[in-house]
Amino acid sequence: ELVAALGGGEGPLSGRRFVVTAGPTHEPLDPVRFIGNRSSGRMGFAVAAALAEAGAEVDLVAGPVHLATPHGVRRHDVGTAREMHRAVMACIDGADGFVGVAAVADYRPASEAGDKIKKSAESMAVELVPNPDILADVAARNDRPAVVVGFAAETRDLENAARGKLEAKKLDLVAANRVGKDLGFDSEDNALEVFSAGRHWALSPKAKTALARELVAIIAERMLERESRSDERPESQDS
Amino acid sequence: ELVAALGGGEGPLSGRRFVVTAGPTHEPLDPVRFIGNRSSGRMGFAVAAALAEAGAEVDLVAGPVHLATPHGVRRHDVGTAREMHRAVMACIDGADGFVGVAAVADYRPASEAGDKIKKSAESMAVELVPNPDILADVAARNDRPAVVVGFAAETRDLENAARGKLEAKKLDLVAANRVGKDLGFDSEDNALEVFSAGRHWALSPKAKTALARELVAIIAERMLERESRSDERPESQDS
Repeated sequence: ELVAALGGGEGPLSGRRFVVTAGPTHEPLDPVRFIGNRSSGRMGFAVAAALAEAGAEVDLVAGPVHLATPHGVRRHDVGTAREMHRAVMACIDGADGFVGVAAVADYRPASEAGDKIKKSAESMAVELVPNPDILADVAARNDRPAVVVGFAAETRDLENAARGKLEAKKLDLVAANRVGKDLGFDSEDNALEVFSAGRHWALSPKAKTALARELVAIIAERMLERESRSDERPESQDS
Repeated sequence: ELVAALGGGEGPLSGRRFVVTAGPTHEPLDPVRFIGNRSSGRMGFAVAAALAEAGAEVDLVAGPVHLATPHGVRRHDVGTAREMHRAVMACIDGADGFVGVAAVADYRPASEAGDKIKKSAESMAVELVPNPDILADVAARNDRPAVVVGFAAETRDLENAARGKLEAKKLDLVAANRVGKDLGFDSEDNALEVFSAGRHWALSPKAKTALARELVAIIAERMLERESRSDERPESQDS
């Protein structure tokens, strides 16, 4: 009954469960300050909505954004990259697909001040340490989902960066977009270049909701290909 | 005509012009990452709206927030603390009041990377340098506005911090509120303790719009007191 209520419906991805991440993460410096990024969460929410429309059951792990939960999607709100990592690991078991759309902070302040840091006339240094890599950790699991999709937001060298990420993290697909002062983040429209090991799709600029549907069609095709080529798919994929 | 269209109307502050700052500032680390803070901008927008309701002409200098411009208020959008400083200085000449509600970043990264910083396995240090102090610079002007009001968001020692700010920056009023994980920032309600050199007002928790009206009543009282005690008020205050 839960599956029916939460988007596990008719469609090409019926019977499959996806975990999607969306939005930025906020890495606190003190109780009021944080390091963030310009992700609005719209692309990730659109992907979650499109997956649910295609019949999948969807767990959406969302960073701090002000967006309505898409219909039929199970939402888990988090703040930091480490919280997002924990939330993903808590629901990844038995998932058929993972789409990491969130702009996860690569670094966090080495320590968080308990009280607000007072202003002084002097400069100061903040030490940053690397955050866990959610996408790489998902892709490296023994029981990794059948399809693992990453996003890459780049200011230059889009294809090299995307293909590098595809190989380094052993992903099935990377969806890459160019970002800059007025591109990609914090806007309604977007364009994507999607890369697999052997193929490339250029999705022209359009509303993120329409773009997400095109991406989900590619993901569904990929998943069906994989299932037809392999006997490895476990029987109980809807746990 | 401009004054009439932009909130210079009937009320206790009729004929006076105020400059108000609101929201956070975002200090870029690279094209996608920034240091921000949890200010929603709601308190500052509510103060601007309440000043306009009280008959004042209002210039609102707003950091990156998703809020509608209050009726009759002239809005100037900015991103960083330095942009906010410039925008305030561009409209402060001849203003009768200044209310600094913005949570201006005290520090910014010493340099902004032109391209997105790549993740590495290693920790890194970011050097932060102090931003200009908008409130202190406004209060230190030869032709400073008759009433200069600061805000203080504090995790502890509210009164000491507020009275310290009042003296150090030579302010007329400081409105202080306690912040923490679930207080003050990013919420609809707030409570304020307002301090002048000789007085104290405790404004109990309520909606920010109602709280802003109470604060504006204190500001208006202060301004009328000041005008009745002084011949220094320039004739052409509505320039």
